[in-house]
Amino acid sequence: VTGRVILVGAGPGDPGLLTRRAAEALAQADVVLHDQLIPREALDLVRAGAEVIDVGKRGGGEQVPQGETNELLLRHARDGRVVVRLKGGDPFVFGRGGEEAIALAEAGIDVEVVPGVSSIAAVPASAGIPVTHRGVADRVTVATAHAADDAEPDYASLARAGGTLVLFMGLGRLDALARGLIGAGLSGSTPAAVVSRGSLPDQAVITAPLAELPECAAGLPGPALVVLGDVVALRERILPGVLLAS
Amino acid sequence: VTGRVILVGAGPGDPGLLTRRAAEALAQADVVLHDQLIPREALDLVRAGAEVIDVGKRGGGEQVPQGETNELLLRHARDGRVVVRLKGGDPFVFGRGGEEAIALAEAGIDVEVVPGVSSIAAVPASAGIPVTHRGVADRVTVATAHAADDAEPDYASLARAGGTLVLFMGLGRLDALARGLIGAGLSGSTPAAVVSRGSLPDQAVITAPLAELPECAAGLPGPALVVLGDVVALRERILPGVLLAS
Repeated sequence: VTGRVILVGAGPGDPGLLTRRAAEALAQADVVLHDQLIPREALDLVRAGAEVIDVGKRGGGEQVPQGETNELLLRHARDGRVVVRLKGGDPFVFGRGGEEAIALAEAGIDVEVVPGVSSIAAVPASAGIPVTHRGVADRVTVATAHAADDAEPDYASLARAGGTLVLFMGLGRLDALARGLIGAGLSGSTPAAVVSRGSLPDQAVITAPLAELPECAAGLPGPALVVLGDVVALRERILPGVLLAS
Repeated sequence: VTGRVILVGAGPGDPGLLTRRAAEALAQADVVLHDQLIPREALDLVRAGAEVIDVGKRGGGEQVPQGETNELLLRHARDGRVVVRLKGGDPFVFGRGGEEAIALAEAGIDVEVVPGVSSIAAVPASAGIPVTHRGVADRVTVATAHAADDAEPDYASLARAGGTLVLFMGLGRLDALARGLIGAGLSGSTPAAVVSRGSLPDQAVITAPLAELPECAAGLPGPALVVLGDVVALRERILPGVLLAS
């Protein structure tokens, strides 16, 4: 009997933002392979006796290579087990879910994809920022500032994208980002926010004009999301009173 | 005693993609105001005796004006009730959640925002398409082709955005979209998909080069999402075997 893999998005960190199907899948799993960005409470949903493997980091602290994770998924599925691959956010938004799905499909293993609450809108929401708003922004551009090959992002096209920019990135690159975007023509006064550890109890939010963002956000812990555009200014009207899911 | 409003995203339609916090909020609600794009099964989670109001459409079929919905939210909250405002997808992604949150904040009503699984990535996923993929697309541009004022979208900037385009739109505008984008320089051979009723049991997916998409997708029912870019071609490698959450 061949097993199967359920590729599950765990959402941005708040355990209330796990989906009902994610909870079901965790309860069914024989093996759970998870990364570091999942809510720890998700693992409470795993049945007793199931195997839980952290593929985010090794003992030494380095990232487990993607090929090794793919091999683990294949091996456990071939052993006839129900394997849940649990990823922070959504598997198909900078999550390498596509690479895992292709590796499994090529090996003839059945895959079910369970989308998660992506940080794209949920993390700005947790800071009181809607990524779209009538008359303010009818477009969202989502990018990452830690390209796989460590190349700089294409600042020129980001600067002229219009609407809201949502950037998944390490805060160590914030200074380069601000310089790159301003150099490419985006105004230094563009309303900007950094949301550090969005949706988690120790979430922190900094807002500042883009030019001042790197200085204001110095020292914030990751993971972080950067939001740029006029929607950031709506925060003052939406707060106070807005709380993210407990 | 003043009540409060919980602004809840219901996800793309599959009831398994409701979050755990959404389910809790529905069970707590005294009143639920919902639109037409929610999973009907969500209403099974509402406790007996709670009031359920469809603010999506009136008897005559026309949309309830946003101002009237805002008034209903305010009135029920001022009556001391726990009000759940349940919206398809995510409240802050083309959902007017920001407008409702501002109206409530200005009236001094507490609002909790519970992000939902947005269609941005979940609907392409339900068709076997990852919106990002290493070496294929590291950027996603999300826009709508039914602008509030019925203006045409800015085809020029969409055509040069790069990466993946995800367009929330009525299929009646597909022909104008294809002509607009190709006229603005996007290749007519760009891999393209229409996902009709994504994540629902009667979901349908059409893929074709952009130039042929309007003809191939004619007659599909809404709501629909259009996906453009090289990630669409990954579908053949990810399928078969990929299933969305039941």
